[in-house]
Amino acid sequence: MRMVDIIAKKRDGGQLTTEEINFFIQGYTSGEIPDYQASSLAMAIYFQDMDDQERADLTMAMVESGDQIDLSEIEGIKVDKHSTGGVGDTTTLVLAPLVAALDIPVAKMSGRGLGHTGGTIDKLESVEGFHVEISDEEFVRLVNEDKVAVIGQTGNLTPADKKLYALRDVTGTVNSIPLIASSIMSKKIAAGSDAIVLDVKTGAGAFMKTDEDAEKLAHAMVKIGNNVGRRTMAIISDMSQPLGYAIGNALEVQEAIETLRGEGPEDLTELVLTLGSQMVVLGGGAETLDEARGKLQEVIQNGQALEKFRTFLENQGGNGDVIDDVSLLPQASYKIEVPAKYAGVVSRIVADEIGIASMLLGAGRATKDDQIDLAVGLMLRKKVGDRVEEGESLVTIYANREEVEEVKEKIYSNIEIADKAEAPKLIHTIITE
Amino acid sequence: MRMVDIIAKKRDGGQLTTEEINFFIQGYTSGEIPDYQASSLAMAIYFQDMDDQERADLTMAMVESGDQIDLSEIEGIKVDKHSTGGVGDTTTLVLAPLVAALDIPVAKMSGRGLGHTGGTIDKLESVEGFHVEISDEEFVRLVNEDKVAVIGQTGNLTPADKKLYALRDVTGTVNSIPLIASSIMSKKIAAGSDAIVLDVKTGAGAFMKTDEDAEKLAHAMVKIGNNVGRRTMAIISDMSQPLGYAIGNALEVQEAIETLRGEGPEDLTELVLTLGSQMVVLGGGAETLDEARGKLQEVIQNGQALEKFRTFLENQGGNGDVIDDVSLLPQASYKIEVPAKYAGVVSRIVADEIGIASMLLGAGRATKDDQIDLAVGLMLRKKVGDRVEEGESLVTIYANREEVEEVKEKIYSNIEIADKAEAPKLIHTIITE
Repeated sequence: MRMVDIIAKKRDGGQLTTEEINFFIQGYTSGEIPDYQASSLAMAIYFQDMDDQERADLTMAMVESGDQIDLSEIEGIKVDKHSTGGVGDTTTLVLAPLVAALDIPVAKMSGRGLGHTGGTIDKLESVEGFHVEISDEEFVRLVNEDKVAVIGQTGNLTPADKKLYALRDVTGTVNSIPLIASSIMSKKIAAGSDAIVLDVKTGAGAFMKTDEDAEKLAHAMVKIGNNVGRRTMAIISDMSQPLGYAIGNALEVQEAIETLRGEGPEDLTELVLTLGSQMVVLGGGAETLDEARGKLQEVIQNGQALEKFRTFLENQGGNGDVIDDVSLLPQASYKIEVPAKYAGVVSRIVADEIGIASMLLGAGRATKDDQIDLAVGLMLRKKVGDRVEEGESLVTIYANREEVEEVKEKIYSNIEIADKAEAPKLIHTIITE
Repeated sequence: MRMVDIIAKKRDGGQLTTEEINFFIQGYTSGEIPDYQASSLAMAIYFQDMDDQERADLTMAMVESGDQIDLSEIEGIKVDKHSTGGVGDTTTLVLAPLVAALDIPVAKMSGRGLGHTGGTIDKLESVEGFHVEISDEEFVRLVNEDKVAVIGQTGNLTPADKKLYALRDVTGTVNSIPLIASSIMSKKIAAGSDAIVLDVKTGAGAFMKTDEDAEKLAHAMVKIGNNVGRRTMAIISDMSQPLGYAIGNALEVQEAIETLRGEGPEDLTELVLTLGSQMVVLGGGAETLDEARGKLQEVIQNGQALEKFRTFLENQGGNGDVIDDVSLLPQASYKIEVPAKYAGVVSRIVADEIGIASMLLGAGRATKDDQIDLAVGLMLRKKVGDRVEEGESLVTIYANREEVEEVKEKIYSNIEIADKAEAPKLIHTIITE
């Protein structure tokens, strides 16, 4: 088998066999196949696409290129959730305890990552004492006993994907549905869960700018998951404006607590119930999405979801009192309002630019050595469709410095006020197979 | 400027600017742009093509990546000929003295190369004493005085093309019209001639298997040449069977002599007159192709073309007596006939396989360290459309070993005899602009 023949076959629109895909991924991981052949194949895939079998094969070849997490000692159906990423996305913080409250095991492996705010672990570290440095045995024990735990990423997962992604980034081959879908799914599958729920974001603040592209990606991932024996569902959700109100680490923990108490932002609550329903159905906790939603609403109303969050935090060394007193979270020194310059209706909040404003305050990392300030961030006071009067606050800046002109400027240039505007629809599509 | 943006632009069907193409070629030649970005761009070009301006820019960027030969001290319009390569192609040996006999300067830089037989220099070295180790000054003097000389390749011509071609060869990006056309034209332009005649082969023995592809390539090259100020014409000629009868080094010199005497194979003679007419028109020796053909036929008939060949050989140390006595050329020890197994009409002679049969005898090089045996080769006794009786010879094998079963087998499996067949048309298309 020669790599140049595999490239030519794909270039001419052929279907690669399982053996050819394994030959490529194994050779590329080991370094026997050079970058220049991998990039040429990636570009051929960009133009010629891959069919369902090829996508499944590519995903599994990347899964098998490294370590795979074994969650078999955890009882029940382990359901993982993945979001393609957005701004102010507090869903994981809410979903983990919420779903666990229905006895669906949530064995979450998470990272820190780069972005507008920290990763899930960074956010949880806003809670005094909370840590993810627990042993594998402790992790398994916690999930078996209390149905929820979070551990930092361990092992050498999907090295083929890491290498290929870095190459795609510099060779114009990122925007390929089969390559994006197999990249995401390989990581989720290697992480060991039995079922997967996907939140594919669409709109200005998302990687997929149109519903059409988002749906293509979602269908591709759901097909891959189901084809390789992991039940998978997805939703397409709006990311034209930030989700919820909070953008920042401690601020999002506070928002998660409010949401678990039933007092969270409308959009975040709706998203959590939609994704949570899919997780509960896949986890065997309900027959239908409607039944699952009813159960989730119940544990919010009766306080079990919030108590589950407390148990989870305390199990990993955190101070559970934050549930009752959010002022125990890190507090910023300055709260600076950004008043509307004129009256009207908020018509646009450019999600990724507002995310960058938050990062400028220190809430996120631009490079992996950056230090995060857990206290800082932004709290939106208005969302698209909300009426605002002149001088009324659009955003509260939580800062640990007095001088925030640059952040204010960025906010003003990325929030538009018009005569009228409607709130965007949050859930665009629900994909169950 | 970033290479990844250039790749993405081409991937999306955009037109690259002169600056972008120069950035790529300069960076790639110097090693600043890595192979994996160049191969990804090549694959994007494969799918999205390049327009006339991009093709001209790419060609000139590759010309400027290395040395360029300066032929300005040679008087007159210097016309070069290029063939895309075939089997038994003796045209250069005939054309050089033929065109020079009409006072059109032929300043030929040639190589040895790999293939079924040697390159032009190898073939000429069949003539005792002939050599191409002459100084640049001697080369210029010979062309000015006698209108024809051949020199070996000197200088570092088109290093960008060498590097890019080697990369394309292993990344499935060879078969791209803009990349093939710019590769060929950059070499011809760097070699310094004022005008170029192209012989694009089509058929089983050629790189371009169909007339449609051959015409696309020919038009692409003619456009590039004319767009960068080198007058260029082309023909599409048949390579479904070998050209002429001889395939081998000394054998082709002998065939060239016969052709210059007006006694050569019909197809080779016709091809030489067609290409020669274009060279004479481009070189200013005639107004029309018909007028040029008349003049060429005249110097064949009056013996001036043959005498020019003698002068050319003697100028570079060769024994001109071969013109009158071809037995002075290297002679093979064995002449072995390959008799037809049954009677009929020759319907197919697979050019490239017959070429390989000749290489098996030692007439060509598979790797650049191989030694060539100048005496050996094949002499076809029949061409497609010829009647053959059972036992009549199809091919004479000229060998320096007795055991040639493998060669015979190859010949039998690649010459077909049927009830009837017609000779293929030699000149498919003439492209003058």
